[in-house]
Amino acid sequence: MANDVKRLKAHLAEVYDLECAGSVLGWDQQTQMPPGGGAQRANVLSTLSRLAHHRFASRATERLLDAAESEVASLPDDHDDRCLVRHTRREYERSRKLPDAFVAAWTQDATLSNEVWRVARKANDFAAFAPHLAKMVEYARRAADYYGWEAHPYDALLEGYEPGMTSADVERVFAGLRTEQVALARAIAEQPSPRVDFLSREYPLEAQRRVGLAVAEAFGYDLSRGRLDIAPHPFETSFGRDDVRITTRYSLDEPTESLYATWHETGHALYEQNIAPELARTPLSGGCSLVFHESQSRMWENIVGRSRGFCEYAFPLLQDAFPDALADVTPDDWYRGVNRVRPSLIRVEADEVTYNLHVMLRFDLERALVEGRLSVADLPNAWRAKMEEYLGVTPPDDRDGVMQDSHWSGGSIGYFPTYALGNVMAAQIYETVTRQRPALEEEIGRGEFSGLRDWLTEAIYRHGRKFTPRELALKVNGAPLDSAPYLRYLKRKYTEIYNL
Amino acid sequence: MANDVKRLKAHLAEVYDLECAGSVLGWDQQTQMPPGGGAQRANVLSTLSRLAHHRFASRATERLLDAAESEVASLPDDHDDRCLVRHTRREYERSRKLPDAFVAAWTQDATLSNEVWRVARKANDFAAFAPHLAKMVEYARRAADYYGWEAHPYDALLEGYEPGMTSADVERVFAGLRTEQVALARAIAEQPSPRVDFLSREYPLEAQRRVGLAVAEAFGYDLSRGRLDIAPHPFETSFGRDDVRITTRYSLDEPTESLYATWHETGHALYEQNIAPELARTPLSGGCSLVFHESQSRMWENIVGRSRGFCEYAFPLLQDAFPDALADVTPDDWYRGVNRVRPSLIRVEADEVTYNLHVMLRFDLERALVEGRLSVADLPNAWRAKMEEYLGVTPPDDRDGVMQDSHWSGGSIGYFPTYALGNVMAAQIYETVTRQRPALEEEIGRGEFSGLRDWLTEAIYRHGRKFTPRELALKVNGAPLDSAPYLRYLKRKYTEIYNL
Repeated sequence: MANDVKRLKAHLAEVYDLECAGSVLGWDQQTQMPPGGGAQRANVLSTLSRLAHHRFASRATERLLDAAESEVASLPDDHDDRCLVRHTRREYERSRKLPDAFVAAWTQDATLSNEVWRVARKANDFAAFAPHLAKMVEYARRAADYYGWEAHPYDALLEGYEPGMTSADVERVFAGLRTEQVALARAIAEQPSPRVDFLSREYPLEAQRRVGLAVAEAFGYDLSRGRLDIAPHPFETSFGRDDVRITTRYSLDEPTESLYATWHETGHALYEQNIAPELARTPLSGGCSLVFHESQSRMWENIVGRSRGFCEYAFPLLQDAFPDALADVTPDDWYRGVNRVRPSLIRVEADEVTYNLHVMLRFDLERALVEGRLSVADLPNAWRAKMEEYLGVTPPDDRDGVMQDSHWSGGSIGYFPTYALGNVMAAQIYETVTRQRPALEEEIGRGEFSGLRDWLTEAIYRHGRKFTPRELALKVNGAPLDSAPYLRYLKRKYTEIYNL
Repeated sequence: MANDVKRLKAHLAEVYDLECAGSVLGWDQQTQMPPGGGAQRANVLSTLSRLAHHRFASRATERLLDAAESEVASLPDDHDDRCLVRHTRREYERSRKLPDAFVAAWTQDATLSNEVWRVARKANDFAAFAPHLAKMVEYARRAADYYGWEAHPYDALLEGYEPGMTSADVERVFAGLRTEQVALARAIAEQPSPRVDFLSREYPLEAQRRVGLAVAEAFGYDLSRGRLDIAPHPFETSFGRDDVRITTRYSLDEPTESLYATWHETGHALYEQNIAPELARTPLSGGCSLVFHESQSRMWENIVGRSRGFCEYAFPLLQDAFPDALADVTPDDWYRGVNRVRPSLIRVEADEVTYNLHVMLRFDLERALVEGRLSVADLPNAWRAKMEEYLGVTPPDDRDGVMQDSHWSGGSIGYFPTYALGNVMAAQIYETVTRQRPALEEEIGRGEFSGLRDWLTEAIYRHGRKFTPRELALKVNGAPLDSAPYLRYLKRKYTEIYNL
């Protein structure tokens, strides 16, 4: 390895380690930390983020980048080192726009805000959470101003989650999806519901955990480099490719909640565990973008996990784990039950047809908050109005309404669109895989997931952040993000299930 | 608060936060981390320790100290700020002797060594562990040379755990203890054993956890600022006074192992949870020294937890938790059973009479390793020979022999003497408390622990590191460390139990 790149890598490794420490502390905060620990945790996370930012956004990084850029200029365009330098330059130019003190204060307040959210959500007490959320909105607005923006401040935030994407792009995609998904949901609403009585029986928690994890392992989740815990909001986090953790949450009479959350997070985890080891401890050791990351969680959760083939494979495992609840149920009942479409309150539990409407609602509200058109005080009412408009349901309280997701509490504003776009990308990738592996659904029906996983590793996972989302989309699908495969997928699947 | 002290505190808060992050990652490594995570964890811990050391051992610290020293010179001698500056000066002078790179490498190798120890111990494979242990010995020797020493390199290491103590001091105390404790053990060996059949029955693990924790809470352990987990070697760790965690380990047929480990670690936790909040996020927010820390763990574990009064209080709880195992057992049986004296293999499970002999053995071997008189290759044999000499027992393997403790694997060489000295200090403090609260044993018999805990908080816990161990001993007991109360305690207690 050339010397300038080597020096750059050594410099960035320290930044990576500090971020990695922050991630461990974040995981601990969500899964293990006693309530009293919040204040000092906020201090520590703030210090870590300030040090990492200070080092990364420094003149030292710029000098090392300048030198490394000359050195990699003659390397092939997709050489690891050249990709590293290119990616780091982009991140550096963005990162240096934020002052260290701003990053530190944002992290500190976001940590405290997340602690308050957790308690306030349980207590259904939006008033307690509101001042913290208002701070998070203010940080997002200030961050957008630091970053700079042309059409909309939201673009500056979105760029952090999905480089190269603007809110105009999102609007365009969402407009196309909305018409089609609303029409599909309406058509389905006129059909009789499949049988779902068995989905609210008693499913012992330990068996939920066991079978959820067994399937995750069958997907390829390596528990010698991972673990499953409980968190109020399911998530995946990684501290390098060899320590990739997932969380879920359990309800006795809602087995699909824990199972599909586990398999969703497993999709994220498969991505992280299969990044090339050569990229370890560099800024390239992570998923390409949130759309790509969510494409994987949503693919394993839904396109795989809610497919007929998967249900035929998994049903015997489920029946073995839950002999009482599933005694009078067939694999076909299970398949139709877990694909039941109806407007509902909770995004993470929504069916595939209505899911994106939950995201569109959040996208609308986020933009209104960031623009200042909507105040935090008015947010719960705006939420209810949007739920009625988009889904025709009214949340009975804020816990299952505006406070249901953890994202805003932790300062993540501009993240939500990537879930819906992830659905779109997932279907597009899956169509590509299926063209190359026509027997894929049959493999899945036999519980053979290595064909799909290896394909995804080769095409996507191993590359980490070597390419931009647009570059990677072109490499994988030969085309940029496109809604058509997703709409084809939804229509084909639900026309069959609901006899449309 | 004056400005120079304020600046010093802000500077030190960052060091504290980095150390705190390292402690969280260390806890995670011992209790949660999947096996694959070890290598990157070593990188992260190494980076954190290097940054903390770099900042603390810097000219910036010195300048801030110089300024703060003038500022606090007119404050009362025991003013928090004056104590802070005095303590920080001492730590600074010691810390700056180590190069950053040495600290980073030591942390990195110690993290990896601890991972290897965990696997090697399970597999009883000393050969796999030996090269890592050899590295740890070499680091300790080099650290001693960096710190500088006069009589013995071991003194330089001991100073890090027990400021002001030398190996000559330890030898003197140990010589006195050895004669008396060996004589006591011999006298006891001639007496019939108390009944212990019930201590190897089946004790369901969940009930062990429940009753262990219930007593810990009765002692005063605040679970809103703490938690209990499982670790291969029990320990306590804290991330500020409001997040203080303990661990234990469980065997189905050895209930006293988990219970007394839990109560031992609770003693450490009570200390940390009751440090004055004013000292938070400063170098004074921690126990005075390891002897003081161990005095508290050993006091709550043994002087309290193995007292007749405690056994009378706790036995109904235990019988309720373990109705089958304890059906035919009386409180007096329990009291005599948990105080049974006999030479044994494992330090942490040893009775009070023979415990210090386990420590003396380690002290001898550590000094021999540090001097270079003993090689790591010869250590298992030396261990066996010393076990026969000191305790008259021979370990059947290295797992329950030389590999039983985690300390050496993590680079802690020079730590062990503080356990035995902690026993001595515990008895001395307890004699002082009893003089002032003659009804203490009766309170304990009624399950009232707040009198003792509040006394200890007032006299010891709240002060954190404001005073040196010698200063604190004088404040608490009016005398320096003294073995007489400990020997009185042992003789009185065991003469009664064994009718000597």
